[in-house]
Amino acid sequence: MAIEGRGDASAGRRIRLGMVGGGQGAFIGAVHRLAARMDDQYVFLAGALSADAKRARASGEELGLAPDRIYSDYREMAKAEAKRDDGVEAVSIVTPNNVHVPAAIAFIDAGIHVICDKPLAFSLAEAKGLERKLAKKPDIVFALTHNYSGYPMVRQAREMVRAGELGEIRVVQGEYPQDWLTNPIEREGQKQATWRTDPKQTGAGGAVGDIGTHTYQLACFMSGLAVDELAADLTTFVKGRKVDDNVNVMLRFKGGARGMIWASQVSPGNENGLKIRIYGSKGGLEWTQADPNYLWYTPFGETKRLITRGGAGSGTAAARVTRVPPGHPEGYLEGFANLYTEVARAIRAKREGRKVEEGVTFPGIADGVAGMAFIEACVKSSAKNGKWVKV
Amino acid sequence: MAIEGRGDASAGRRIRLGMVGGGQGAFIGAVHRLAARMDDQYVFLAGALSADAKRARASGEELGLAPDRIYSDYREMAKAEAKRDDGVEAVSIVTPNNVHVPAAIAFIDAGIHVICDKPLAFSLAEAKGLERKLAKKPDIVFALTHNYSGYPMVRQAREMVRAGELGEIRVVQGEYPQDWLTNPIEREGQKQATWRTDPKQTGAGGAVGDIGTHTYQLACFMSGLAVDELAADLTTFVKGRKVDDNVNVMLRFKGGARGMIWASQVSPGNENGLKIRIYGSKGGLEWTQADPNYLWYTPFGETKRLITRGGAGSGTAAARVTRVPPGHPEGYLEGFANLYTEVARAIRAKREGRKVEEGVTFPGIADGVAGMAFIEACVKSSAKNGKWVKV
Amino acid sequence: MAIEGRGDASAGRRIRLGMVGGGQGAFIGAVHRLAARMDDQYVFLAGALSADAKRARASGEELGLAPDRIYSDYREMAKAEAKRDDGVEAVSIVTPNNVHVPAAIAFIDAGIHVICDKPLAFSLAEAKGLERKLAKKPDIVFALTHNYSGYPMVRQAREMVRAGELGEIRVVQGEYPQDWLTNPIEREGQKQATWRTDPKQTGAGGAVGDIGTHTYQLACFMSGLAVDELAADLTTFVKGRKVDDNVNVMLRFKGGARGMIWASQVSPGNENGLKIRIYGSKGGLEWTQADPNYLWYTPFGETKRLITRGGAGSGTAAARVTRVPPGHPEGYLEGFANLYTEVARAIRAKREGRKVEEGVTFPGIADGVAGMAFIEACVKSSAKNGKWVKV
Amino acid sequence: MAIEGRGDASAGRRIRLGMVGGGQGAFIGAVHRLAARMDDQYVFLAGALSADAKRARASGEELGLAPDRIYSDYREMAKAEAKRDDGVEAVSIVTPNNVHVPAAIAFIDAGIHVICDKPLAFSLAEAKGLERKLAKKPDIVFALTHNYSGYPMVRQAREMVRAGELGEIRVVQGEYPQDWLTNPIEREGQKQATWRTDPKQTGAGGAVGDIGTHTYQLACFMSGLAVDELAADLTTFVKGRKVDDNVNVMLRFKGGARGMIWASQVSPGNENGLKIRIYGSKGGLEWTQADPNYLWYTPFGETKRLITRGGAGSGTAAARVTRVPPGHPEGYLEGFANLYTEVARAIRAKREGRKVEEGVTFPGIADGVAGMAFIEACVKSSAKNGKWVKV
Repeated sequence: MAIEGRGDASAGRRIRLGMVGGGQGAFIGAVHRLAARMDDQYVFLAGALSADAKRARASGEELGLAPDRIYSDYREMAKAEAKRDDGVEAVSIVTPNNVHVPAAIAFIDAGIHVICDKPLAFSLAEAKGLERKLAKKPDIVFALTHNYSGYPMVRQAREMVRAGELGEIRVVQGEYPQDWLTNPIEREGQKQATWRTDPKQTGAGGAVGDIGTHTYQLACFMSGLAVDELAADLTTFVKGRKVDDNVNVMLRFKGGARGMIWASQVSPGNENGLKIRIYGSKGGLEWTQADPNYLWYTPFGETKRLITRGGAGSGTAAARVTRVPPGHPEGYLEGFANLYTEVARAIRAKREGRKVEEGVTFPGIADGVAGMAFIEACVKSSAKNGKWVKV
Repeated sequence: MAIEGRGDASAGRRIRLGMVGGGQGAFIGAVHRLAARMDDQYVFLAGALSADAKRARASGEELGLAPDRIYSDYREMAKAEAKRDDGVEAVSIVTPNNVHVPAAIAFIDAGIHVICDKPLAFSLAEAKGLERKLAKKPDIVFALTHNYSGYPMVRQAREMVRAGELGEIRVVQGEYPQDWLTNPIEREGQKQATWRTDPKQTGAGGAVGDIGTHTYQLACFMSGLAVDELAADLTTFVKGRKVDDNVNVMLRFKGGARGMIWASQVSPGNENGLKIRIYGSKGGLEWTQADPNYLWYTPFGETKRLITRGGAGSGTAAARVTRVPPGHPEGYLEGFANLYTEVARAIRAKREGRKVEEGVTFPGIADGVAGMAFIEACVKSSAKNGKWVKV
Repeated sequence: MAIEGRGDASAGRRIRLGMVGGGQGAFIGAVHRLAARMDDQYVFLAGALSADAKRARASGEELGLAPDRIYSDYREMAKAEAKRDDGVEAVSIVTPNNVHVPAAIAFIDAGIHVICDKPLAFSLAEAKGLERKLAKKPDIVFALTHNYSGYPMVRQAREMVRAGELGEIRVVQGEYPQDWLTNPIEREGQKQATWRTDPKQTGAGGAVGDIGTHTYQLACFMSGLAVDELAADLTTFVKGRKVDDNVNVMLRFKGGARGMIWASQVSPGNENGLKIRIYGSKGGLEWTQADPNYLWYTPFGETKRLITRGGAGSGTAAARVTRVPPGHPEGYLEGFANLYTEVARAIRAKREGRKVEEGVTFPGIADGVAGMAFIEACVKSSAKNGKWVKV
Repeated sequence: MAIEGRGDASAGRRIRLGMVGGGQGAFIGAVHRLAARMDDQYVFLAGALSADAKRARASGEELGLAPDRIYSDYREMAKAEAKRDDGVEAVSIVTPNNVHVPAAIAFIDAGIHVICDKPLAFSLAEAKGLERKLAKKPDIVFALTHNYSGYPMVRQAREMVRAGELGEIRVVQGEYPQDWLTNPIEREGQKQATWRTDPKQTGAGGAVGDIGTHTYQLACFMSGLAVDELAADLTTFVKGRKVDDNVNVMLRFKGGARGMIWASQVSPGNENGLKIRIYGSKGGLEWTQADPNYLWYTPFGETKRLITRGGAGSGTAAARVTRVPPGHPEGYLEGFANLYTEVARAIRAKREGRKVEEGVTFPGIADGVAGMAFIEACVKSSAKNGKWVKV
């Protein structure tokens, strides 16, 4: 092995962490806890893991929380933790979408930093309300776990675009096919499917909110571009489903670039096929989430190159979020953990009353509002038969 | 090696072939001649290889044509060949688009079968004129070389969809990125670029006509679906270029399926990236032109499979157009040759006054008209800011 | 997302862990600590992180160890920890090879479980000595971190072979090319290269010990076979290097199967190219470490399948060591962590005086002795010009 | 499309070709005929397509041969054709191995050029006899169809090695797994299997002769190296089979490079898995026959590159044997045809009494003798339990 590892070097300065949601039977809560733990930057101490008191208690006990720090009401938790000397400094919100903003506000008001799952909110209006609140709370760190932006090769792509290696960006293609909603499994009580297809919990968008926002955020994050307007055609293929399960979007970026997003949850053979391709006047980049350690790069007129995480051609932005040498694959959890570790750096800067160190990057409230604006623009455009809508 | 070869078994019954276009400096003419020769189904005997008499002569001599069968005017050639006992039975038209229909008409009127390069015509109106003429000439075989439909795994996909293995088709995604027009090479006199970006020779569409039509034809051919309406956003990224070089289209198929087409000639790192993906209620298929011997198939809920040309799982439609055993890759020229051999079967059936044998399949006038309708719909939709246009 | 996560559910019963080696500047120590932490099964409390007292102290402080639990002598550490009520229950040994066995003995004698990096020892004799000692210490859990055996798809392969899905195994091909020792970087003081090419620290084998043993262990682990005899040709390509850097081996397995191992550290373009292929009378399997979430499976006469971690066709052995749904890649650290979590289960069974639960699997002393026997057989065979040597 | 085509430009100077073997039911004969035809360099006029007179006649008629040029005895054919003014100038020998040399001698004695399938002979002694004869016949062109050496990217690799881009070659790995002989299909009368596993027709080697020689020839052709000695372990896994079906070989090249060859016909999931990897002090190359348009190249310390046929980084040696632009895949038949076209250039030079033009490259008698020496060395080494044997 050729390069030095990275990992737990900053331990001993762990951040006290709580969680809302993520009790027994949940998926993403466990991912957040693991991500928080990976680089030894956090210690998990309190939770309102379920709104059901019994399940909250069982979940908290299983995870080894002290009995007096197991809550079933996040408002109560925010207040109680704020009063303790050893109260949590940050909270992860991993509930269905409709609870994100109310919970975030409770903790922000209690002076506690927030790490929130995506999409940010139930509606764009709600998201903007949170944005206004945060504008008045400069001491609060707010992070949104668009986790794919934590992958080293995503950072590498962004750095290359910024450095002008692709020239002027012309084309950005994003896609995110899945197949797990090919059949109406929400009717069989599959928990993930049930809330994600229930407009009361998930909001107006189905696939467009769940995976379309990831694609949109990543396309913008990697290309450095913002979307000006879009035309969308949302479809629901599974009979009786209440939200879209296939999303076609055409994009016009500010500055003239063009792009498309395809997101689908009914395309058999696709597990989690997020892919971003960016083409400019001087070169092109291609990245696929399922094989995240690779970034294809072609300087126009030269041979195609395969940049690998940690390998030759991989620069400083990727190196910051790389743990092990090239050829030793990192994956989804490492990318997720990278966001947690970046946020830890920001929180520690707040603790110490200083500016955060250069290079620390994670999605925040602006990404969250942009994501909600994307969902609403897609829904609106689709309702108007694909008319172009400003984002 | 495990299976029996195929190839030249029907020789001795070769079809007499002529050509319009394809003289020195051309690209696709040589491909047509090679494709005609591969399975020993044709003998090349006459040509109007260039409108320039000197170049026509030099080209014909180089290819070993008899001096009296080298022409510079295709009308003259059609008449002269029609009079000979040993005159050509079929002609390949491999000129720029604006000559396709006039040349086809000259040979059809002379009773000679036509194999025409794509797109069919300069305009939809011209294409429909040819369609009307052909409707009155039932003895003429007319083929359009949408060559990608000759690939065995494309045939395999089509057969599987037809057999219902994918269930009801929901999503069809087509893409065709290239990069060779990233810079304005038409200004440097590159011959292929010059005519393909000149609206007087190529028609109203640039990338949409050159490669968009291939994608459209193949998406319909493989899925068995027809498009009802589309919304397009055509862009010209290279300054001064007179036609589009990047094409975004959203598709609504008859019956409810949805899809998108992306065609681009300015996306660095893509040589000839034609790809078709089809998803239904029971399974999905994915095929990539650059690796044409593979077809990915996932029956929903089962493991993804890699069907290979000639291998297990490959059926009769592919076997008809397969020459060598699995693991011995066939490519672009073999696919092209498959169309020529299919057409030879149809011509021989005409010769012998019988019905063509079952399974013979090649694109014809209907595909050509559909392609022109696609181009015009895209241009129209784009001009109307992406409004949905019936095809 | 389609399946339930796994992860930290057993927390609150964490195992107290120490470490020998792994101080500042080391690579694999940080990997072990991260692997221990990932599933929240361990708490890291003490270390002899370096034999250099100053470096040991600095390293321990950085990692947040209590001052009285930072040691520079592992013997002292073993004694001191054994006396404490809250002393470590297990220790990770992550030193150069020559320290493995002496350190292991110190902790075993102190009644502390051992997790040891590979290869097991400096020599086969030393390994056998440890084996004899462990035979007398049935209450000690001893694990060897042949980490690649922790990958879910490796477990999947093993389970399929065991279930007879491949029929009688005939061919097992292992390879492990790297390129990081293409140049004599040990002369430039690169720390990893220096000790790994120093026979006094690494033992008689260079590449054969460092990566050949991984390949050998995995080939046997996945195929369920044991090697009877081997013929080896070890080469040192870089002038002045004191150990082999390219390894060619032919294998004869007990029962008649044949195989080869190629391990190289001088093959440019290979980062960490471990690959195992197994072929039997009924089917074949192929697995590549750089893309660990995929397992290729071909039942003879049928279509090739791509089994994915967590996807259809993935069985119970893989599911036990899977955290996130298919399409969300897991990697090197997750595989490493799987071993730590398996060992935690074994240690907890000892704690509770019960048998370990079914299915718990990790490499131990037998693998370690086998690995040393492999190294010595290769060195011996090569010295005798490739003569077959019993393992 | 970006570059000019190539193909039939030299027609009108076609070479008159005959064939021995390749009648109805054969595989490789049709491949040779198609390869000869592809670039319009040959005209097929005569054949002893079978030793069975009836089958010879039926085969010849089907292929359109004139009745007086259909033979059942190749000696008779050689004599008769030599007497005709329009007699064949060259003959393709596509029989089982035991007929290669006797047939070649008959035609050489008649002054007719020979294109012979591989392996060259039934035994090394027989091969050397042919070599001696050819040494006295400088006007005869003799080619051996190690067809894989006709692939453009194989030529590209060879050119790069020659130009020193890999530095000093250290490691050459060749492999050629197949699976079609996993079961004893020779007992079911499968024609290809029957003669290839019959030592009376195929010679002493099974897989080692059929595909081992291809691997060996290609490894030497691409690396520019010659083998000094080898150690082999040949195995027959299918009970009752009379020749080897799995081949393990360790190689020591002149000059110090090391390598291995694995050839197998019993490895399920492998169709025709020929792969060559070459590593030197400055870089590495990897090529896979199933995806022949790609060549992986890593200059040590830089990013891995994907060189494509016709694309950037592809040089003059590949360009000579390239027909269509990058992204339009060429395959097995094109590679095969490249040899035929190269041989045509050599034959035309003989016709015209001049030296052949620079760059013309095809395998000949030396490759054939080397291949037989390889087979015999493998068989001998294996019989002596893997002892090193000079080649």
